[in-house]
Formats: sequence, structure tokens, C-alpha cells
Amino acid sequence: MKFSQLIQSLSSDQAELVQTSSLIEHPACDPDLTSLAAIEEAQAGSLSYIEGSKFARAVQITQASAVILPMQASLQQMATDRHIAWIASSEPKLLFAYAVRLFYQPLPLEPGIHPTAVIDPTVELAEDVAIGAYAVIRAGVKLGRGVTIHPQVVIYPEVNIGDRTTLHAGCIIHERTQIGRDCVIHSGAVIGAEGFGFVPSAKGWVKLEQSGVTVLEDQVEVGCNATIDRPAVGETRIGYNSKLDNLVHVGHNCQISPNCILAAQVGMAGGSKTGQWVILGGQVGVANQTDIGDKVQAGAKAGLHGTIAPGSIMMGNPASPYKTFLKASAIYNRLPAMHQTLRQLQQQVEFLQQQIQELQDQANSHESRSD
Amino acid sequence: MKFSQLIQSLSSDQAELVQTSSLIEHPACDPDLTSLAAIEEAQAGSLSYIEGSKFARAVQITQASAVILPMQASLQQMATDRHIAWIASSEPKLLFAYAVRLFYQPLPLEPGIHPTAVIDPTVELAEDVAIGAYAVIRAGVKLGRGVTIHPQVVIYPEVNIGDRTTLHAGCIIHERTQIGRDCVIHSGAVIGAEGFGFVPSAKGWVKLEQSGVTVLEDQVEVGCNATIDRPAVGETRIGYNSKLDNLVHVGHNCQISPNCILAAQVGMAGGSKTGQWVILGGQVGVANQTDIGDKVQAGAKAGLHGTIAPGSIMMGNPASPYKTFLKASAIYNRLPAMHQTLRQLQQQVEFLQQQIQELQDQANSHESRSD
Amino acid sequence: MKFSQLIQSLSSDQAELVQTSSLIEHPACDPDLTSLAAIEEAQAGSLSYIEGSKFARAVQITQASAVILPMQASLQQMATDRHIAWIASSEPKLLFAYAVRLFYQPLPLEPGIHPTAVIDPTVELAEDVAIGAYAVIRAGVKLGRGVTIHPQVVIYPEVNIGDRTTLHAGCIIHERTQIGRDCVIHSGAVIGAEGFGFVPSAKGWVKLEQSGVTVLEDQVEVGCNATIDRPAVGETRIGYNSKLDNLVHVGHNCQISPNCILAAQVGMAGGSKTGQWVILGGQVGVANQTDIGDKVQAGAKAGLHGTIAPGSIMMGNPASPYKTFLKASAIYNRLPAMHQTLRQLQQQVEFLQQQIQELQDQANSHESRSD
Repeated sequence: MKFSQLIQSLSSDQAELVQTSSLIEHPACDPDLTSLAAIEEAQAGSLSYIEGSKFARAVQITQASAVILPMQASLQQMATDRHIAWIASSEPKLLFAYAVRLFYQPLPLEPGIHPTAVIDPTVELAEDVAIGAYAVIRAGVKLGRGVTIHPQVVIYPEVNIGDRTTLHAGCIIHERTQIGRDCVIHSGAVIGAEGFGFVPSAKGWVKLEQSGVTVLEDQVEVGCNATIDRPAVGETRIGYNSKLDNLVHVGHNCQISPNCILAAQVGMAGGSKTGQWVILGGQVGVANQTDIGDKVQAGAKAGLHGTIAPGSIMMGNPASPYKTFLKASAIYNRLPAMHQTLRQLQQQVEFLQQQIQELQDQANSHESRSD
Repeated sequence: MKFSQLIQSLSSDQAELVQTSSLIEHPACDPDLTSLAAIEEAQAGSLSYIEGSKFARAVQITQASAVILPMQASLQQMATDRHIAWIASSEPKLLFAYAVRLFYQPLPLEPGIHPTAVIDPTVELAEDVAIGAYAVIRAGVKLGRGVTIHPQVVIYPEVNIGDRTTLHAGCIIHERTQIGRDCVIHSGAVIGAEGFGFVPSAKGWVKLEQSGVTVLEDQVEVGCNATIDRPAVGETRIGYNSKLDNLVHVGHNCQISPNCILAAQVGMAGGSKTGQWVILGGQVGVANQTDIGDKVQAGAKAGLHGTIAPGSIMMGNPASPYKTFLKASAIYNRLPAMHQTLRQLQQQVEFLQQQIQELQDQANSHESRSD
Repeated sequence: MKFSQLIQSLSSDQAELVQTSSLIEHPACDPDLTSLAAIEEAQAGSLSYIEGSKFARAVQITQASAVILPMQASLQQMATDRHIAWIASSEPKLLFAYAVRLFYQPLPLEPGIHPTAVIDPTVELAEDVAIGAYAVIRAGVKLGRGVTIHPQVVIYPEVNIGDRTTLHAGCIIHERTQIGRDCVIHSGAVIGAEGFGFVPSAKGWVKLEQSGVTVLEDQVEVGCNATIDRPAVGETRIGYNSKLDNLVHVGHNCQISPNCILAAQVGMAGGSKTGQWVILGGQVGVANQTDIGDKVQAGAKAGLHGTIAPGSIMMGNPASPYKTFLKASAIYNRLPAMHQTLRQLQQQVEFLQQQIQELQDQANSHESRSD
């Protein structure tokens, strides 16, 4: 693709993100773009991007033929001087995300229904559904328009799947799960299986059957081998446009609001809930019944419990506000030194007490002598 | 189901759990029960439950038609006053678990063997086995009576599976694994695969072949995408009625005793073992060769190693008894303040030392003058 | 197998590891070996091993018929005295690993291509490929000589798999992934799926398509249900002979060098990289862009970020050098006591200050009286 074509495509689809470009200034500079690359790995023909002026050095040495730059004239001048074609945007990474789509789309599944797919006669299929080899779709399932079911997906009875949703190979959707439109379920994810409910009794653990349902709203993504359980009663719900990374666990009755990000290996115990725009770092653990406010962020490995106020940035286990945590953890390694200092101080104070006792005794005896 | 029918069923099957009910007092109050719900989400027609008097407020506002209550007359009166039918039990949640089964059972697999299942001629099948589409069962496998194999399960050679055990879609059972009766293996779980055994050598890591076996005793449950490895020699064993949640990892040679609970994302390294009735919270890690006593409980994210005395309640990493941990973690955030206080004290003590030195010098010079 | 045959096999294949044996001294002692066992579980007929003299007691009571011993004459004498056949080696566990292979090999898949495998006509198959039931291999895939594909593996388009690599049942290889020779991918692992890339925008999270590739070099092993993502641009790469345990997550663009060990449930966030011979304990988390030097070791549950110097042994979160961490964590539980001591010291110092003030006042008044 010519750089000029790229400009044209992006300007028509993402006009508000394309502020200016080198093409205007140097119409002769219109490289052929054949690949996408990180700025430091770019080659001739690569399109790349940087997010801010701290990457200025990369612009000075990159082999990229074109870059998406932030709105800084100095960076633009630098690129121009090196004959690198550029586009300037207020959001370079976002514009790069749109640019990638002009170069690459995930390889599609063949259209139509593979003859080996086992589909119950009661299944309702809308138009343009693609179903891969050895998929198994049980009774009462409904698939919306343009749904893609990759090979070896299993869908238990009475599941609904919304328009244009993609289920990658090997994911398993359990009974009565509701999946919205434009969702992506990655390979090996298991949605709507039985929550972990056992009640202690004299005879051992008694199973609490999980009669509830799991609901994924529109545009949810669920990572590879992630698990989202259904509850004993009520719903487990993942809100609109929330994105869950690989190996995330969401327990029964959790409520995740729209636009949340759960990084890999996060675990949310039963009944916990998040507000909107929450971001949980990798391996974060959320105790059951935790109530996480809007826009909370939790650093990797944080352990959350109780009620977390909106907008908090939390770290550590049990989690604290990040400033508190960073200050405390900066001192942590000095604990042995502090412990020693404390013992020294104790000895010094004890010695001071003795000395003062002596001075007092002296003073008293002196007083009595002076009397 | 009528409330009176519910009473009748529960009283016949779980007589010891049904102490009394409103039906005796108000035979006219016999609502139709059509759903199960948490107390705060209940609607007309819902059966719900509460576990103790701290939920009294919920009884005052719930829309439920019937509730299972603990043995407290005041709560019973409250329900009666609101025309809510009730059952009183010494174990309300346990009774609710039995009540759920009268309303809901997991949707069964169609009976019989799906024609697409690939079953080696040497496989021994007992009566009433159900096998789903595209299941693959290799040589020498034995399936007990009433076993359910959901679609796309793979069973490697020489596996034994006990009566009435259920294998959900997409789980994989590796060679020579022994699974007991009444077990449930959830989707995507992998049982009996090779343990992680590599020996360092000058040429790199050399694989230690894993010739041992994995054994699950009766009534074990294994969560979605959990993994239980087989060892190089000997056994990995999960005891009777132990329950493992999603994404749990159990390494080679681990020995889990009966009636343990491992919450989601727990990891047990090779050769670790637990006593009976152990409860490990989410994301707990157990170091290799750890020896966990009976009835130990570990809080979420705890890191266990060494020998843990029976009955201990452990938290933190490395784990401590929970009282110790809670006290220490309550102080943790004051570390920066403590550090500062310590420095102030050092300065104050130094200044005191100087002052005392001066006083001593004064006293000495005074003494000498007095002489 | 006779002990003498074992000696003969090991001496011919692993000559440098077999230093001496009891057969030389006692040619009459040549037991039949029928099983492999840990030293404390060994029975008559078992071959076992110990790694050092701290297991001397086990040699005195084991029922094993033969043991592999370290190079210590006293242990050898002990075994001889008990009529246990022995082999002495500078690396007993390594020699045991080779011995195991003479007793046990994983049960092979039937040779040839199962008639139910769905293989795109464009797939290139080398000689001696074994493909199990219901495997799905899509367009443009190339399989090397002696590759084994177990049942229900799905391979997306344009994947290359090197000679003698084994893919266990239920693993899923995504588009354009490159897998080297002699690799083992365990059940449920997902390789080369889309990295977790979303860019914030006013409208919500916008997907950054993942156009890069995942590369596994030769002799890599990937554990059950582990996930290794492909990046937006460039490569995710796992180096030669590196071994990843179950449920490990490797994010987009990670670079793992040769001969690394990642224990179960490790998570590496996007763009992190390791040097060679790195060992990460269970549940370790690696923040994005972390740069881990050669031969770094991290204890279970450590949280790594930033740059980790080669050879460091790290523990804790955020991770510290292990000596620092162990000293600090040893003090951690004394925090409440330290806090109390600190308060006492503050009071004591305050009281000392008062006393000194009084002494000074006395001295001054005395001075003035003396004047």
C-alpha cells in the first residue's frame, strides 16, 4: 500500500485522528508500505508509530519508511529530515490500531457449515453463519447473523449467541449462557460452567447445584483458557466492551461493568463486582463480595477485598492506595536495619536512664550535702 | 412447585434438616414456587434463604414467596408477619442446596453412544454409559456404570473411570489415570498428563519421563481448565470428596487427602501434600514438599512451605498464622512513619547523650571545685 | 530387566555418567528390576536413586533391589551390606532419568492418519506423521517428519511444525505459528492466539489487531492449558530447549531465551524478556517490558519488573535479592512489636528529656546559687 493510500483511507474513516501529514508538505515522498513494525525493529517498507517525545531517539535511527507521530513539530521535522513519511495524530497508538487493519485481518474461517459439524435439529441459525469442523451444537441454541464458530467448539443446550460473535477453536459454552453481539471468545475458554458451590455438612461437602446463568454483553472478549462460571441463583455478568485476558477466572455471581480490562491470570471470587472502566493488572486476586468502584486500577498481583473507592489506584496484598504501598515497600527492605537500630536505641536509652539516675543521685546527695 | 410439596420432599429426604415450618402454623399460606433467588433479588414466586440474623433486614424487604430461615423465632415471626412462607433449619444453606435440586438439575447429555464417538474395540463399557459426539476413547479404557462422557472428551489408553462419573466437554484424561465413582471433571481439565520433570545437564534440560499415575478417589470434582499431573514414579492422588476449582494446578506426586477445598488458581508444586479438610483460598501457592496438616486453612494468595501444623489458619507470603499476619499487615503501611520516627529518635537520643555529657562534665567540674 | 542389562545399556549410552557399580564387585548380585520408585516407596524389584548423603537413612531402610547412588564410598558400602545392587554416578538423578527410559515410554499414538482427521488439501505432510481422530489441520500448514498430532488438535492456517514434534490432545495452534523440532505441546495449550491489545478511545477499548507471529525454537515444551500469544507486530519467541509448565501465560512480544524454566502459573506480561538459563518459580509475575538477565532465578510468587541483573536470585513482590527479602520477611512478623517498642522509646525519650531539663534547671539554679 502506498503511503498516500494509507492517508486517504485513514482520513476518510478516522478523520478526527489524522491531524496532518508529511504528504501535504512533500507530495513526492510516498513510500510503498509492506509491513508493520515496532519503531526499533522497523525495516524499509515498514509503517511504525511512537507515542511521545521520549521516543525521539528512535525516530532518529529507525529504518521505517513511515511513522505515525504525536502532535509535536520537532518530531515531525526530525522525520522529514530523515525522509521518513509521517502522519501526525493526537492519538498515535489509536491511529496505528486503525492502520493495522488496512494491512492485516485475522485469517477467516471458510464460510458455510462444515459437513462434520453436529448441529441439533432445534438449533436456530441466522444468515451467514460459519461453523467449522467437528463443532457440536446442542438443542435449543440460537446463533445470530454472521456468527463464526471455529472447529471443535462445543455449545451446550439453550445458549444464545449474538450477531457477528466469534468463538475460536476449542472453546466450550455451557448451558443457557447468553453471549452478546460482536464478542470474541478465544480458544479453550469455558463460559457458563458450574460455579464452585459446596456446603459443608457432617457427611462432607454437599454440592449446591448452579441453576443461574452467565451473561456476556456486546463486544466482550474472553481470553484463551479463561473461565467464567454460572451461579447457583441469579447471574454472572460481564459488561459491554469489557476485555478479559488469558487464564482469567470469574467466579459465580460476579458482576463486571462495561469497559473493564482484566489482565492475564486475574481471579475474581464469587459475588465480587466492579464498576465501569476498572483495570486489573496481571494475577490480581479479588476476594468474594468485593465491591470495586468505577475507574479503579489495581497493580499486578494486588489482592483486593472489601469496598474500593472509585478512582483508587491500588497495589499490594492486602491492597493499599499505590502511594502508600510504594512508600511502605520502599522501606520494607530496610526492616532488618530498622530492627537493629531499634535495639541499639533501646540500649542507648537504658544507658541514658542509668546515667540520669546517677546524675540525679549525685544532685540529690549534693543537695543534701549543701543543706 | 407448591410450598407444601417442597416441605414434603425435604422432610422425607432431609428430615434432620427441617426443624419446623410456617405451613404448620398457617396451612392457608402455600405459595407456588417458580424460581430460586438470592434474598435481595427474589421476586414473587421465589424461594430464597438466609444464613443468620444479620440478614434480618433482608427478610423485612424481600419479595420472596418463601424463605429458608435459621432457628430464630424472631426471624420466623418477621416472615410470618410479611406473609412469607418459611422453613426453619439448623443449616439453612445446606437445606437450600437440597431444595435447589428439586427445581433444577444440570441438563443431561442424550443417553447412549453418539455414532461419531471413536471408541477403541478394547474399551470396556458398563451399562447406561452416555458418550457424546466426537469423544475419543483409546485402547484399554474401562468405563463404569452410568458414566457420562460429554462431546470431545479425549481419553488416552488404559484409563479407568468409576460409576456415575461425569466428564464435561473438552476435558482430556491421560494414560493410566484412575478416576473414582461420582466424580465430576469439568470442561478443559487435563488429568494425568506428564509432570514437569527436567534434570539439568551440561547439554541442557533432560526430560525425566513420567511413568507414574494419577488417582482421583470417589466424589472428587476438578474445575474447568485445571491440571493434575502424573509423576515420574509413584502416584499423584486426590482424596475422596475433595473439590478443586477452575485453573488449579496440582503437580506430580502431590497427595491431597479427603474433603479438601482448593479455590480457583491454586498451585501445588510437586510432592506437596495436604491433610484432610484443608481449605486453600484463591491463588494460594504451595511450595514443593510442603506438608499441610489436617484442617489447615490458607487465605487467598498465601504462600505455604515447610510443615504447617494441623488447624493453622495461614495468610501472607511466606505464610504466617493469620493473627500474626493481620497485625503485621496492619502496621505495614505505617513503615514510612516508623522509619521517620526512628530517625527522629536517633537524633533525640544523640542530643540527650550530648546533654548528659555536659551535665556530667558540669557535675565533675563542680565536684572538683567543691573538693 | 536384569540389573546387569541396565548397567550395560546405561554404560553404552551414558558412559560418562556411570562411574562404577556393585556388579563389578558382586557379580552374583543381579536382581530382576520390574519397577521404578522413590527410595522411600520402593519394593522388591524396584530401581530407585538418591541424590546425596542426606538420604543415607533411606538407603538403610529401603526395600529397593537396586539404587543409583552418588559418588560416596560409605553409601555404596551401606547398599552392599544390605545386598542392594547399586550404580554410582556423579549425577544420580540425571542417570536415573536415562534409566527410566529403559522401563517406560509414553504410550504412542497409533501410526498413520486417522480417517476422521480433517486435513486441508494444501497441507504438506512429511514422512511418518501420525495424526489422531478428529484433528483439524487447515490450509497451508506444514508438518515435518515424524510429527505426532494427537486427537482433537486444531491447527489454524499457515502453521509450520518441525520434525518429531508432538502435539497432545486438545491443543490449539493459531495462524502462522512456527514450532521447531522435537517440541512437546501438552493438552489444552493454546499457541499463537491474539495478544491482548486494546487502545483506549473516547468510544471505549479499540482492538489492536495482532498481525505478528509466535515462534517456538527446537526442543521447547509447553505445559497443559498454557497460553502463548502472538503480538500486534513482530514476534513472540520461546528459545531453544526452554520448558514451560502448566497454565503459564506468555504475553505478546515476549522473548524467552534458550534453556529457561517457567514453573506452573507463571505470567509474563507483554514485551518482557529473559536471558538464558532463567528459572522462574510457580506463580511468578513479570511486568511488561521487564528485562531479566541470564541465569536469574525468581522464587515462587515473586513479582519482577524493570531490569534484573544476570545471576540475581530474586524473591518477593516487588522482588528483591533473596538475602534481602529473607532478612526483611523474617522481621515482618515483628512489626507490631517494633511499632510498640518505638512508642515506648518515644515516651522514654520524652521522659528523659524532661528529667534532663530538670537536671539542667537544678544545675543552673545551683550554679547561680554558687555564684
